[in-house]
Amino acid sequence: MEPKTYSQAGVNIAKAEAFVDRLKKISRRPAHDKLWPAAGGYASVYPLDASHGVALTTDGVGTKLLVALEQNKLDTIGIDLVAMCANDLLCAGARPVAFLDYYAIGKLEDADADQLIAGIVSGCDQAGMILIGGETAEMPDLYQERHFDVAGFAVGLVSRVRLLTGELLRPGQTLVGIASSGIHSNGLSLARKIIQPGDASRAQLLVPTLIYCQPINYLLDRNPDLIQGLAHITGGGWRNLLRLNSRLGFHIDNPLPVPGIFKQIAEQVESREMYETFNMGMGFAVITADDGETIVKVCAEHGFQAQVIGRVTDAANQIIVEGGLNSKSPILLEGK
Amino acid sequence: MEPKTYSQAGVNIAKAEAFVDRLKKISRRPAHDKLWPAAGGYASVYPLDASHGVALTTDGVGTKLLVALEQNKLDTIGIDLVAMCANDLLCAGARPVAFLDYYAIGKLEDADADQLIAGIVSGCDQAGMILIGGETAEMPDLYQERHFDVAGFAVGLVSRVRLLTGELLRPGQTLVGIASSGIHSNGLSLARKIIQPGDASRAQLLVPTLIYCQPINYLLDRNPDLIQGLAHITGGGWRNLLRLNSRLGFHIDNPLPVPGIFKQIAEQVESREMYETFNMGMGFAVITADDGETIVKVCAEHGFQAQVIGRVTDAANQIIVEGGLNSKSPILLEGK
Repeated sequence: MEPKTYSQAGVNIAKAEAFVDRLKKISRRPAHDKLWPAAGGYASVYPLDASHGVALTTDGVGTKLLVALEQNKLDTIGIDLVAMCANDLLCAGARPVAFLDYYAIGKLEDADADQLIAGIVSGCDQAGMILIGGETAEMPDLYQERHFDVAGFAVGLVSRVRLLTGELLRPGQTLVGIASSGIHSNGLSLARKIIQPGDASRAQLLVPTLIYCQPINYLLDRNPDLIQGLAHITGGGWRNLLRLNSRLGFHIDNPLPVPGIFKQIAEQVESREMYETFNMGMGFAVITADDGETIVKVCAEHGFQAQVIGRVTDAANQIIVEGGLNSKSPILLEGK
Repeated sequence: MEPKTYSQAGVNIAKAEAFVDRLKKISRRPAHDKLWPAAGGYASVYPLDASHGVALTTDGVGTKLLVALEQNKLDTIGIDLVAMCANDLLCAGARPVAFLDYYAIGKLEDADADQLIAGIVSGCDQAGMILIGGETAEMPDLYQERHFDVAGFAVGLVSRVRLLTGELLRPGQTLVGIASSGIHSNGLSLARKIIQPGDASRAQLLVPTLIYCQPINYLLDRNPDLIQGLAHITGGGWRNLLRLNSRLGFHIDNPLPVPGIFKQIAEQVESREMYETFNMGMGFAVITADDGETIVKVCAEHGFQAQVIGRVTDAANQIIVEGGLNSKSPILLEGK
């Protein structure tokens, strides 16, 4: 039987979320009180003084790296790694500045390793970061032959005036979606079981994740008051929007076009599961109190397609999507 | 045939070092010039202003985690993870403050995951850090059943007066060794092939790595001028001492006692290889311009055994070890 849900593909999000809740509880210490509250938990912000903080996050690329190995193309997976971390830092209002990588392999193969690093460096260049450190670990017996894993650790600087907490979101504000390049680095465990090896679309699973630093830094630097919230559409799909402020919701009635790869997957996966697993064509979202046109224009100037897709609502923890996959009936997404 | 060298056990240090040299070259950007020069490359220091910087490092625990899985005891491997990172930060003169973990598994098992996190939290408490973030990734098909990997990212604060660059080392200065708890988290790929399952010593391979933050922070806070250099004795064994300043060497004639576990491994491994792979009873080293007695005393007060073990010499990139494993003939270790 083909897996029809992310859970059947071997990834149990609810179980992982329960684990994260437990670990937050047991790791809680009084010193956590001094951290700055950053929207959505995308990054943690450690304060340096009253007006400056360091934003920190870590992420990996999931089983997208198995697709890279299968296609013998390892030179872009590093871009995905940087993207996953850098886009998270942006959501706190931070400017990404430095990156470290942890690279574990069964046996170091020069050609593979050099390709991987070339991608990381290219990603850092796009994100305005420099690669300042890392760990390369040969772990025979843990990883099968060419198998490896890679984790990224990104550091950003954030001033109190740029910090985004989610507290400034209000019903009626404008939601701007910025296009993704395709599947990015989420839901691959499901996608690669539906778009199987040999499928003409298989190579599309490897298109690198977009890095949104250039337009977002530009906007935050010039007019931090223009942006009330930022959401990286990562694991959990469009439910990421609800991370910013659980007392509010969204009504989306003009979504970005759904890329073909998602339409193909949707032939075997229920619509709501699609929006809760994949980015569905929107890699990043911006919430603004104005009409959104400045944001759309700045994105275009930096080569990113963006459009006003909807509004913030007072329906707590709910997203209504109209005009998306099943354009006849609206889809309702709910926060956990 | 039993492996007699680390390389035969599947870990090729020379190849990994060549890779790191290549990656440093291709990742080099003008912005790297502003990083503060931290001794030994244990951590990278990103400056915040003229007098404050953030120290950053990443590390894993190597195949020690396979021993933990085999013994069904995952509650201390998190201590190792924190130790590997926190001890590295200290070498820059930094005070470790925050930690993030990347935890990748084939399938999340609550009991295993909870044990792992309990260890990380315990390690953070010892190190004076708080766990501020992390990523938990279920990656079916990459990791075999209970297999997992874990990487740590640690953040420290360092003021310009505490920063250690290695430039203050001089011939004649005192070398103080601080005892390890055993094998710590290095050389496990070799050790676990010699101390095999069923061997009475096998459980000793899992004793957690010591965290040296308490005595070292105490010393650096009260008298930063007392310490000219710090070395975490990690992968590469005692050659770590040579990372601090390649123009100098060391003469060690009063080493800490060699723990039994290393004597047992040394029955099958050449002495020089032992010192270039394992900590040989010394987990951390301090270089001071005074007689070392204050450092020994402060370590004892914090529960760490330490002693003056030798001196800095002008023999560039060379360590002579007398009175160690083969007490009859000195052992010569050379930097790469």
